[in-house]
Amino acid sequence: MDRTDPEGAIAEAAKRYSNWGRWGDDDVLGTLNFLDDTKRAEAAGLVRRGTAFSLAQSFDADGPQRGWRRRTNPVHTMLDTGLDAERGQGFPHGLGGADDVIFMPLQASTQWDGLGHIFDHGRAWNGRRAGDVVTSEGDRVTGIETTGARLAGRGVLLDVGRAIGVDGELPDGFAITTEHIEATVAAQGDSARVGRGDLVCVRTGRLSRARREGWGDYAGGPSPGLSFTTAGWLHGSEIAGIATDTWGFEVRPNEFDDAFQPLHQIAIPHIGLFIGELWDLDALAADCAADGRYDFWLTAVPLPVTGAVGAPVHPIAVK
Amino acid sequence: MDRTDPEGAIAEAAKRYSNWGRWGDDDVLGTLNFLDDTKRAEAAGLVRRGTAFSLAQSFDADGPQRGWRRRTNPVHTMLDTGLDAERGQGFPHGLGGADDVIFMPLQASTQWDGLGHIFDHGRAWNGRRAGDVVTSEGDRVTGIETTGARLAGRGVLLDVGRAIGVDGELPDGFAITTEHIEATVAAQGDSARVGRGDLVCVRTGRLSRARREGWGDYAGGPSPGLSFTTAGWLHGSEIAGIATDTWGFEVRPNEFDDAFQPLHQIAIPHIGLFIGELWDLDALAADCAADGRYDFWLTAVPLPVTGAVGAPVHPIAVK
Amino acid sequence: MDRTDPEGAIAEAAKRYSNWGRWGDDDVLGTLNFLDDTKRAEAAGLVRRGTAFSLAQSFDADGPQRGWRRRTNPVHTMLDTGLDAERGQGFPHGLGGADDVIFMPLQASTQWDGLGHIFDHGRAWNGRRAGDVVTSEGDRVTGIETTGARLAGRGVLLDVGRAIGVDGELPDGFAITTEHIEATVAAQGDSARVGRGDLVCVRTGRLSRARREGWGDYAGGPSPGLSFTTAGWLHGSEIAGIATDTWGFEVRPNEFDDAFQPLHQIAIPHIGLFIGELWDLDALAADCAADGRYDFWLTAVPLPVTGAVGAPVHPIAVK
Amino acid sequence: MDRTDPEGAIAEAAKRYSNWGRWGDDDVLGTLNFLDDTKRAEAAGLVRRGTAFSLAQSFDADGPQRGWRRRTNPVHTMLDTGLDAERGQGFPHGLGGADDVIFMPLQASTQWDGLGHIFDHGRAWNGRRAGDVVTSEGDRVTGIETTGARLAGRGVLLDVGRAIGVDGELPDGFAITTEHIEATVAAQGDSARVGRGDLVCVRTGRLSRARREGWGDYAGGPSPGLSFTTAGWLHGSEIAGIATDTWGFEVRPNEFDDAFQPLHQIAIPHIGLFIGELWDLDALAADCAADGRYDFWLTAVPLPVTGAVGAPVHPIAVK
Repeated sequence: MDRTDPEGAIAEAAKRYSNWGRWGDDDVLGTLNFLDDTKRAEAAGLVRRGTAFSLAQSFDADGPQRGWRRRTNPVHTMLDTGLDAERGQGFPHGLGGADDVIFMPLQASTQWDGLGHIFDHGRAWNGRRAGDVVTSEGDRVTGIETTGARLAGRGVLLDVGRAIGVDGELPDGFAITTEHIEATVAAQGDSARVGRGDLVCVRTGRLSRARREGWGDYAGGPSPGLSFTTAGWLHGSEIAGIATDTWGFEVRPNEFDDAFQPLHQIAIPHIGLFIGELWDLDALAADCAADGRYDFWLTAVPLPVTGAVGAPVHPIAVK
Repeated sequence: MDRTDPEGAIAEAAKRYSNWGRWGDDDVLGTLNFLDDTKRAEAAGLVRRGTAFSLAQSFDADGPQRGWRRRTNPVHTMLDTGLDAERGQGFPHGLGGADDVIFMPLQASTQWDGLGHIFDHGRAWNGRRAGDVVTSEGDRVTGIETTGARLAGRGVLLDVGRAIGVDGELPDGFAITTEHIEATVAAQGDSARVGRGDLVCVRTGRLSRARREGWGDYAGGPSPGLSFTTAGWLHGSEIAGIATDTWGFEVRPNEFDDAFQPLHQIAIPHIGLFIGELWDLDALAADCAADGRYDFWLTAVPLPVTGAVGAPVHPIAVK
Repeated sequence: MDRTDPEGAIAEAAKRYSNWGRWGDDDVLGTLNFLDDTKRAEAAGLVRRGTAFSLAQSFDADGPQRGWRRRTNPVHTMLDTGLDAERGQGFPHGLGGADDVIFMPLQASTQWDGLGHIFDHGRAWNGRRAGDVVTSEGDRVTGIETTGARLAGRGVLLDVGRAIGVDGELPDGFAITTEHIEATVAAQGDSARVGRGDLVCVRTGRLSRARREGWGDYAGGPSPGLSFTTAGWLHGSEIAGIATDTWGFEVRPNEFDDAFQPLHQIAIPHIGLFIGELWDLDALAADCAADGRYDFWLTAVPLPVTGAVGAPVHPIAVK
Repeated sequence: MDRTDPEGAIAEAAKRYSNWGRWGDDDVLGTLNFLDDTKRAEAAGLVRRGTAFSLAQSFDADGPQRGWRRRTNPVHTMLDTGLDAERGQGFPHGLGGADDVIFMPLQASTQWDGLGHIFDHGRAWNGRRAGDVVTSEGDRVTGIETTGARLAGRGVLLDVGRAIGVDGELPDGFAITTEHIEATVAAQGDSARVGRGDLVCVRTGRLSRARREGWGDYAGGPSPGLSFTTAGWLHGSEIAGIATDTWGFEVRPNEFDDAFQPLHQIAIPHIGLFIGELWDLDALAADCAADGRYDFWLTAVPLPVTGAVGAPVHPIAVK
């Protein structure tokens, strides 16, 4: 890989790994096409104990956002409170109520990138013009609501932090390659095999560190993450989605001298892949390490905000 | 029931159906205590075809809210669009991006009421003082995030609209009684039996009508819904949660001369019950009517907004 | 005027009344160039009694907005309240505090349209491409903050409602022509003469009616307002700004068969004129009618929201 | 002053400097009672050149807020842009438009504290119970809208930074005492005398430094500001309002070992004084230093957000 030529590398990867047209010109689902009812029915069979794990970070003002591109942390305010109720709110027969409101960037906390989130040279998923897809009215073609109920199926945890890292964590700037992925699968055993339609959760340990040391530059700063060179694996594995415990999915700093999130530029508009960010995989990872089973039933259906290019989600793994 | 005495009826029901102390003084989960791993594991066995159904209404500006108590519809705005990307956003190597933000009441669309949403004479769930629970900082005791990953389990659809109504819909002001519930279960057959830890979805047909005729007074106006007299069934059935396709769960107008949501006043602070509102049960109901199976695997985990007294959710049924 | 040809009428007016280039290619101020320090110093001499009049409508949830193009009324919520302070907020020595937050469209209530608010065939003020001026980052050229402290000077009230209407109000659909303006000036006398750099306030009485009858379709519905034919007067009078007590400044419905705010399309991008909407001129008008003086010192400097294409303002007249 | 006894010092000052009842039990205006039409008419006579100065900081995402008590910087987003207009928005005859929305804490940037902003031991201005004044519905008694058009009158700049500081700036932690105020008045000459009903602007130079060095801890960190010992002067001078170029008006850290904004606790609930924060006095100060005139016509009427306990303002000085 030539560090000085992101344009060239991106162009080549775009050519090799494009799924444009694979599911017809009107497709809005990308890799969700790999996740069908049959896969979903099989995945439900993974539930044994019935234990459910939340894979979400919290949604509140104490999050990692620092204002980059106007992304703040969620601001939750009350329209009515218990204090108001005690004082009297004008309702009959002693009824009292509390109510609330939120303002937040849709990618402030645990979320999926929609297919309208990233463009390559003005082109969105399936070759559409970016401006034909996402205007000030939102994503009118591939808005997150088009994913419907599909983001539920087999989840596989790849705990790269535990398999490859030190004390379960990869250092900042660590680029996870296909070899690292394969080594992790091998170390974890049969239940960690990745196949068509799977929803892959990659744990780097970056969040564990943020939890211990404070957010710092968690949002946008140095971080372990996927190498640009995994584009081929992301394409060839035919997975439906992939999520990490980091802000930006890819290794940071990126692997070119002057670059910004080049793997996104392949994965979203060309592969049509759903990328999850800011997930919390720690509790699930501890359980998987304990019982040796790395696959599970995963429901990770985003909030259906019409026209959203990204959307908050509370992913739930059940083993 | 004496229409002129909501205070008396509420006081009596509060006494009869209270779960205060049932799970200890520190309990924050209420009826979610009925939904354990064993129940969850059994429920996963209901998945057969792998077909997933979204039970959410959309989250956008075209919703039913009319400004009651400052509740607006969600306002979704863009921080960056495809049009900006085409024009150039200053990123390297042809990368472009879209990003977005939302402002919304947490109960603007499909949602769960948290246990801090409603109070009875200044008392919240488990007997706590309302003002000790919910301040301007939110619900510091029973905030929706305390439900974690628990709201996944066996769902049961009670399509009362189809079983009792005309053309699948109940008229406004129709109070669903325990007898109607039992008749619906009987009509629907074995798969519709309701038991401990279940998540019950009651379809009235009110949303079908709104879809056909426009929102009108959907938010707060006349509607079919549960009768105050079902308080005993809500308590005795030991269900974990119950949701409807209406704005307010209860029949509207309420069944007392001067009243406002009296059943909430029993169900939330006294029973500790999770109530879902503004759900869309139509697609699921059609499928259930077709195959005669009314139970399914339901994941309805709310967005974990710290301190929220209600929270948006994208409930997913899988059959 | 040919009701069937708005395109033709607009093209002709654009040609006749254009100020493009008048103040140089880099100009961002438009008609504010007419309002200089000398004019401002003269205007201060109009203060006699020292009585100040608010010309703002309120900013709250009870406003006229109905959701058109996602414009809601302002939503004001509290971060802390006096109830919290009574209960204890953790501050030392008995300090308590309340704090608050607002979400609002910048044109929800009393406001100025900025020069980036309206475009003619993709062209903004001074001939710039609309997309070179206003992106998702806001108006990067003529953002409302560029007006600085300039919007203070001589105000003149034209109470057309009182001069021409019945009981001080013009009916919906009443198009105020140049003749009506001149007749109003004549009826009001010398203090009502309009000249270069003035800030003209046109009262139609529409708000008085809304106050009496409720908002109804105040926001976007039928209304009295300026006729498209006043474009020449708006240009030739060399006023700095003009505001009305209506939602949309222009008569509604507009005067062409298929049209939307055609006078805006001339006034803002071609004349470079500042248009105020949703002002409350009633108290000031009563005073002017009483003392026969229709000019005053007016400070109407908008909130300097960086990049805003419109901005809230609390205009203050002092006589 | 005993650094270890803020309670005692506050109690004594509260007793000495209270204006409770001074203007009747129903009063909601506090020190605005000192600013009448006569004062206002005199002040207008200070306009000579007609030069207007903005005293506002900008309202945008690049402000000083760091999230303290959920206060973010303003987030301004677009509902429509020029790029959308170029692409076509569905309006007839070539009309295009841009529109926008803001979310912001009301005290995010240049603002007035309302009388409901601060309480002393649960008491608000004029002795009312804090919770009787400010609930989740806002300040229902002394909401900022009750100030109407009053905040316009004689402004006086006290450039303490220039008179007492080094290179026009006071260091962090510098407590401005009554002696410093008097020395500044003396140094500035006759036009700087302060009297009843005046709106006093105190420049510390803190903002000049932030402009040069970045925001750092501007919001809440160390800063020059008024000493607690000025409470007597604030009361006895009978000024209507006072504003500074700092985040918090008072010196920071505060002058007691364990304290938070003790002067606010006297000034707002007991004196009924209007305090302005986050003002930008630099351009005005340079002009005053140049011409030797420190008084001017000041219009500083806040945005009338119903029930607000603080409100944004664009203060305009005219000389």
